[in-house]
Amino acid sequence: MRVSELVEASGVPLATIKYYIREGLLRPGASTGARQATYDESHLRRLRLIRALREVAGLPVKAIARIIAIAEDSDGDLYGSLGKALSELPPHEVAGGPREHPRAGAALAQLGQSYDPTYVAVAQLETALAAAESVGMPLTDDRLLAYGRHTMAIAQAEFADMPEHRDAAIEYAVLGTVLYEPALAAFRRLAHHHLALERLRGS
Amino acid sequence: MRVSELVEASGVPLATIKYYIREGLLRPGASTGARQATYDESHLRRLRLIRALREVAGLPVKAIARIIAIAEDSDGDLYGSLGKALSELPPHEVAGGPREHPRAGAALAQLGQSYDPTYVAVAQLETALAAAESVGMPLTDDRLLAYGRHTMAIAQAEFADMPEHRDAAIEYAVLGTVLYEPALAAFRRLAHHHLALERLRGS
Repeated sequence: MRVSELVEASGVPLATIKYYIREGLLRPGASTGARQATYDESHLRRLRLIRALREVAGLPVKAIARIIAIAEDSDGDLYGSLGKALSELPPHEVAGGPREHPRAGAALAQLGQSYDPTYVAVAQLETALAAAESVGMPLTDDRLLAYGRHTMAIAQAEFADMPEHRDAAIEYAVLGTVLYEPALAAFRRLAHHHLALERLRGS
Repeated sequence: MRVSELVEASGVPLATIKYYIREGLLRPGASTGARQATYDESHLRRLRLIRALREVAGLPVKAIARIIAIAEDSDGDLYGSLGKALSELPPHEVAGGPREHPRAGAALAQLGQSYDPTYVAVAQLETALAAAESVGMPLTDDRLLAYGRHTMAIAQAEFADMPEHRDAAIEYAVLGTVLYEPALAAFRRLAHHHLALERLRGS
């Protein structure tokens, strides 16, 4: 398609598309003449990814560029690259967070889950568990087991749909994390709401 | 305990405690003399609640005051009050969000969950599902059923531990939502991480 059609299909203005090409976020179109180039589905998909990361996750262009570079670096192993790409996502406050993670480590050991202690989500879990503990609401064993079992079942359902091709897989994991985290938070609140309404009717 | 002991036990400075009393967030201590008052466990628990809502959820003092007023208003029915208190929590961007929620409504109907369409989490779900759809990653039926089943199981485990007493129950629901939402997001990311590591070893 021509660049005007790419603007139309993606909803991204021409000046922004040119900016993304200059910054290396988007490959140039294939040249079809002195001042013409043609674009395809891969450009459109890439623009959707960039828009979601900017608008939904609020990521700066530099972080998006790093994610894209990871996705395109065919030397890295897929699962190692996935971890690196996901580490670019918010919350970022944990980047300078706890270096030791006794609570997260104990929880993951109890669940029998393997993990790399430098992976950003470990510090994220430690921060959350420490906050809960500090207000006198520590994670109980029963609740840990429920959380572990059901988040693993959710992750397995998501993993089953992961595309095979490398950059599509990384794009899927990044978008799935960013987009479905708020959806899952809303589903949990709505499950509480449903249970509260049921009790209200029953009492 | 004396106010100096309350400062010590809660980690909240004296000036801040006085400010919370003036703003009606904290009941004054029981007077034991001209310039003395005594405080108990309920004051300490309240200070923990306020700290979590300020530091973890980033709520302004006025929103915290509304949550506390709801918890203390013994006229409201418990489950209606719970919904009102939870509506004070972030994300707030959805407050001015979609008024129609075709995607959220269809998803909840398919799950057989009852809901009040004015409840803030409905708009939150609609916003998340619309964002996923706009980048070409709509919620599939299979994934909806997995999300619905497992978030309901999590909610049931949480509901089972809810205290009976009215303000303790509201405090539990508010803190549980604020504190365990980030923990659950981290558990989901760590479940993906575990699955990725397993695949890496297997390949």
